[in-house]
Amino acid sequence: MGASKAIEQCLTLTPSFDASGLLACITIDAATGEVLMLAYMNEEALRRSIETGEAWYWSRSRRELWHKGATSGQTQRITEMRVDCDQDALLIKVEVAGDGSACHTGHRTCFYRKVALDRRSVGTPALIMND
Amino acid sequence: MGASKAIEQCLTLTPSFDASGLLACITIDAATGEVLMLAYMNEEALRRSIETGEAWYWSRSRRELWHKGATSGQTQRITEMRVDCDQDALLIKVEVAGDGSACHTGHRTCFYRKVALDRRSVGTPALIMND
Repeated sequence: MGASKAIEQCLTLTPSFDASGLLACITIDAATGEVLMLAYMNEEALRRSIETGEAWYWSRSRRELWHKGATSGQTQRITEMRVDCDQDALLIKVEVAGDGSACHTGHRTCFYRKVALDRRSVGTPALIMND
Repeated sequence: MGASKAIEQCLTLTPSFDASGLLACITIDAATGEVLMLAYMNEEALRRSIETGEAWYWSRSRRELWHKGATSGQTQRITEMRVDCDQDALLIKVEVAGDGSACHTGHRTCFYRKVALDRRSVGTPALIMND
């Protein structure tokens, strides 16, 4: 069994961090399944997320550990964590505290704009606000 | 209005590729909303995805454009595309052809293992098969 099959089949969490030491993490709403955001965790953020049961990320723009909601009040309680086949991506289900928004813009989800695919023949695609 | 607010509020798709020229892309099942996989698109993969209406990715391991399902038959027809606040991540809703599995392991989703968070006090977390 090659290294990759071992990672796909093993029953131990053996995360495969990228060259920057990060895993992508998809965060979804525990109640509705809606995708709220995509962020990154380094080893320390993953350890804290597992130990505290709240989402910690690594902010690539600020280059620092980030306890989601620590300042805004919208902390994320993790109810479930999954890992993908090659263990380089995580999926967490969360309950968002405070006003329930996951995006710093105030939207519930970061994915509040839809790409207007039906207008794709006329150059740069437009975006439609769609929360 | 700063550059970041402009990106958050504009109604034009202006993707922010990372240092490797990639955007993270979350792929979900159009019918159920289930998260199927996380992959990456470079500019060419994004262009082809928009133009053909089928998912194209950039394979980081093989370092090549990747028309998902071209060999397996499990192509992904895109019914909706969203972009996040800072335009460095995409969300696509897809209808999977063939046997409906999105993962090369044969699982429907790449996230077929759950992290055993309740056993987190005893060292390395275990994984539970859970498709």
